[in-house]
Amino acid sequence: MDGTTPRSAPRTRTRSWWGWGWADAHPADAECAAMGALLPGTLARPLPVPDLVRGLRIGAPAVEPPPALAHLVTADPADRAAHAMGKAYRDVARALRGQPGRIPDLVARPAAEQDVADLLDWAGGHGTAVVPYGGGSSVTGGVEYRGDAHRAVLSLDLTGMRRVLEVDTEGRAARIQAGALGPDLEAQLRPHGLTLRHFPQSFEFSTLGGWLATRAGGHYATGRTRIDDFVQSMRVVTPAGTSGSWRLPASGAGPSPDRLFLGSEGALGVITEAWMRLQERPRHKASAAVSFTDFHAALRAVRDLAQSDLSPANCRLLDPGEAALSGAAHDGGSVLVLGFESAHEPVDGRLARAVELARSHGGRPEGDTGRGGDAAVGAWRAAFLRMPYLRDGLVRMGAVAETFETAATWDRVPALIDAVRTEVGAAALKATGHPATVNCRLTHVYPDGAAPYFTVLAAGRPDDGVALWDDLKAVAGEVLHRYRATITHHHAVGRDHRPGYDLQRPEPFALALRAAKDALDPRGILNPGVLVG
Amino acid sequence: MDGTTPRSAPRTRTRSWWGWGWADAHPADAECAAMGALLPGTLARPLPVPDLVRGLRIGAPAVEPPPALAHLVTADPADRAAHAMGKAYRDVARALRGQPGRIPDLVARPAAEQDVADLLDWAGGHGTAVVPYGGGSSVTGGVEYRGDAHRAVLSLDLTGMRRVLEVDTEGRAARIQAGALGPDLEAQLRPHGLTLRHFPQSFEFSTLGGWLATRAGGHYATGRTRIDDFVQSMRVVTPAGTSGSWRLPASGAGPSPDRLFLGSEGALGVITEAWMRLQERPRHKASAAVSFTDFHAALRAVRDLAQSDLSPANCRLLDPGEAALSGAAHDGGSVLVLGFESAHEPVDGRLARAVELARSHGGRPEGDTGRGGDAAVGAWRAAFLRMPYLRDGLVRMGAVAETFETAATWDRVPALIDAVRTEVGAAALKATGHPATVNCRLTHVYPDGAAPYFTVLAAGRPDDGVALWDDLKAVAGEVLHRYRATITHHHAVGRDHRPGYDLQRPEPFALALRAAKDALDPRGILNPGVLVG
Repeated sequence: MDGTTPRSAPRTRTRSWWGWGWADAHPADAECAAMGALLPGTLARPLPVPDLVRGLRIGAPAVEPPPALAHLVTADPADRAAHAMGKAYRDVARALRGQPGRIPDLVARPAAEQDVADLLDWAGGHGTAVVPYGGGSSVTGGVEYRGDAHRAVLSLDLTGMRRVLEVDTEGRAARIQAGALGPDLEAQLRPHGLTLRHFPQSFEFSTLGGWLATRAGGHYATGRTRIDDFVQSMRVVTPAGTSGSWRLPASGAGPSPDRLFLGSEGALGVITEAWMRLQERPRHKASAAVSFTDFHAALRAVRDLAQSDLSPANCRLLDPGEAALSGAAHDGGSVLVLGFESAHEPVDGRLARAVELARSHGGRPEGDTGRGGDAAVGAWRAAFLRMPYLRDGLVRMGAVAETFETAATWDRVPALIDAVRTEVGAAALKATGHPATVNCRLTHVYPDGAAPYFTVLAAGRPDDGVALWDDLKAVAGEVLHRYRATITHHHAVGRDHRPGYDLQRPEPFALALRAAKDALDPRGILNPGVLVG
Repeated sequence: MDGTTPRSAPRTRTRSWWGWGWADAHPADAECAAMGALLPGTLARPLPVPDLVRGLRIGAPAVEPPPALAHLVTADPADRAAHAMGKAYRDVARALRGQPGRIPDLVARPAAEQDVADLLDWAGGHGTAVVPYGGGSSVTGGVEYRGDAHRAVLSLDLTGMRRVLEVDTEGRAARIQAGALGPDLEAQLRPHGLTLRHFPQSFEFSTLGGWLATRAGGHYATGRTRIDDFVQSMRVVTPAGTSGSWRLPASGAGPSPDRLFLGSEGALGVITEAWMRLQERPRHKASAAVSFTDFHAALRAVRDLAQSDLSPANCRLLDPGEAALSGAAHDGGSVLVLGFESAHEPVDGRLARAVELARSHGGRPEGDTGRGGDAAVGAWRAAFLRMPYLRDGLVRMGAVAETFETAATWDRVPALIDAVRTEVGAAALKATGHPATVNCRLTHVYPDGAAPYFTVLAAGRPDDGVALWDDLKAVAGEVLHRYRATITHHHAVGRDHRPGYDLQRPEPFALALRAAKDALDPRGILNPGVLVG
């Protein structure tokens, strides 16, 4: 895979318009073909990457912005196409076939909160839907307009608002603009010795605002796993006015205002900035990998760990297929990747107790355990960050390659994982005539349950575009619903998860959310089709 | 104080109708007089406790329940009077003067969720306001109907629904009915070796449903300080239908449904049960008290502790007045009460490091530090539980005796505490001609701020009832607003905090909440005047 290792970053790298991340980090044709050869039923040669502008026949926009806002708005076809979709398998497969979703008429890049308010005002008066756009890494159709109920569509790209505006070193918090990508905000916090320490797989290609709007899962496998808990206050521009909560360490004054906007996915307002709780950079780290012959014994070990006081920062359990795929094991066993960290105290003792606990469930510690010995974690992290690029390579080979995730209580986790593997695998075999790969890892664990994350690799049916995946996802959704497992732990609802979300959400809450939407967005312009409407 | 020590519990103890807790635990007249003698300007003799029924002239109810629900409903005057108010200073003072708030027409005690739905249906059709009532320990007017916009008022007492319905020992969770008082639910969990470990000051006299509806602060001084984080799922009966969320360890599917009802204070629906996350009972405990000459140095020590990895379960800082009042110190110093606990690991090391950290800020460890040596904590806890009874004794002496609490970021905490002490003290002196006591303790601490809790003891103005306290509270509210400190950290908004809450709440969130209220409670019968309306 030498030829495809990401090159050292040039001064300006180009984002891929059709697939994940950097254009120059995608596997070359030969690697795509080599991967495809491992998956029966795929194409002999990779699909070509289509020419963006000539291939898509992008028409003139249906609306024009007013002169006062024209400097924030572009109708450039390439820019518009790059904002048409997120980065799910469905998006990549459609882009490769030259069939993206509806191309937005305009892309706006506000420079300040007032610009956002002005753009919403204008859009509301011109029948124009507004789709908030951060890094564009949605894998659930969160940034794609569907249907034709609006005269025009504006993609509201927040990445021009990417500054850390204030840092409170005494209280370890910072006021950060919503359009800051992960590396942006960490670079601005580093001189203060502080970090947000939120590292989703999309870290390079997603923004603070996107994390807040989708309730993203972050760095920690246990405890405070979600961005929600790091929010001190937020500002949100809605068509009915701008909401600003106070900076507070905690408050019991009514239902939390921030919790209404966390997870609102652009349907209630546009998050423009937040005061975020920060941490000191960890000075003590230790990691280990533990292998298990019996996956169900490994599940019990992880449950005990989650119910202990040990609080591992990383606690990822890879099933045999996932362990093989990521290079963590090739002996058919499961692998538990453990990591501990602290800014203040050595963590070797906690790691040793965790390994001992895993051993009591039949686990075998592997490799270089102990302080600084995080080769296993390093290997895992490299594979973790490269996986989306490899997925796109497989999609170019005509394969279905996608992930989905959930969470359930411990009493349901083992049977749920077995059922997803069995039923999605059987559905893929029946549809394609080829055996599919359905792997599982636990990404986050809790005292009362866990978040299984599934990878599906299957031969595609080149003629029907994304229909096969839609069918497999429907099978998966049915299994999740049967086990009362959430339709999403941290990928958000977007448009793809609406059917499962509508079944899961309590009806009175749906009434309340619809009423809140109508109050804040009376013209229904904000990310239509997401959550409500 | 010998004669007033709570007697060992008889088989059935009687709740006080006019004051806190058990009727037999209130200080006798002599102790009231002794306390009053310490506070210049109070009465010479305690106010008598009025006769409940003869004193209040309670009329016939304005409505009668239908026969089908009659077995759940009573119009008994004593029962109605006991449900007229919560247990704030305002409530005790008004009860002692024979001037309680509006007496509810009926008290209903549902035995099942369907009873709640039926009662709401009936009330909605009969112009009857419904005030959900758990233990009745509100100190912010949360269970008191005010005004005359409704034909009648029904107090909905949930304490008939007090069972633990299911226990999941594998996932450490239990399904608990909302009307279970603290001791009720702990007694039912104990045989399973599990505990909710939620110990507010009102533990004996408040219910799970009340904790959830008011986002109560619990046992832990750091980390997961609030009941919110222990909720796995909830059921809530609203006039528009019953909401039931799924049991999930975590979910990222839209804004959290539970977080809308947490803190809704009975205005959006009636919480009937919840699956709650439990813990093993701690086997390792250690505690210590550290005294400080300089309160501001103690604040810095506590901040460092909150920003460490040590996670004390108890971390209460008492200012000099509060330390003297609770008997923790009499040398004019501040006292930090520290406690650590764990079900799995010894905690002596963490305690030692915490004490060392406190010492580096000038703290002096006191008394018996170390494993099992929690005499300081025991003394503190005894005083903590007795304080509300002593408050009522002072109120009988004509004094104003009340507490309020808030939270703010660290950059504001020291000046905020100074300003509250100075300005509330000055206002009391000006109004009464006597110096008042304004003490402070920190009840909960966070990496980014803390929750100061204030005690005010002042000579009253016997002729004007609760007006003096209303004036002092307005001064306090003005200081909190100026420092952007929350109107409540864990006492809830109720009716007393509405002015501060309305100023603090972002206007678009108020619009959304009002819309949600109208959707779920279109006839406006649920706890009118709380949060919205």
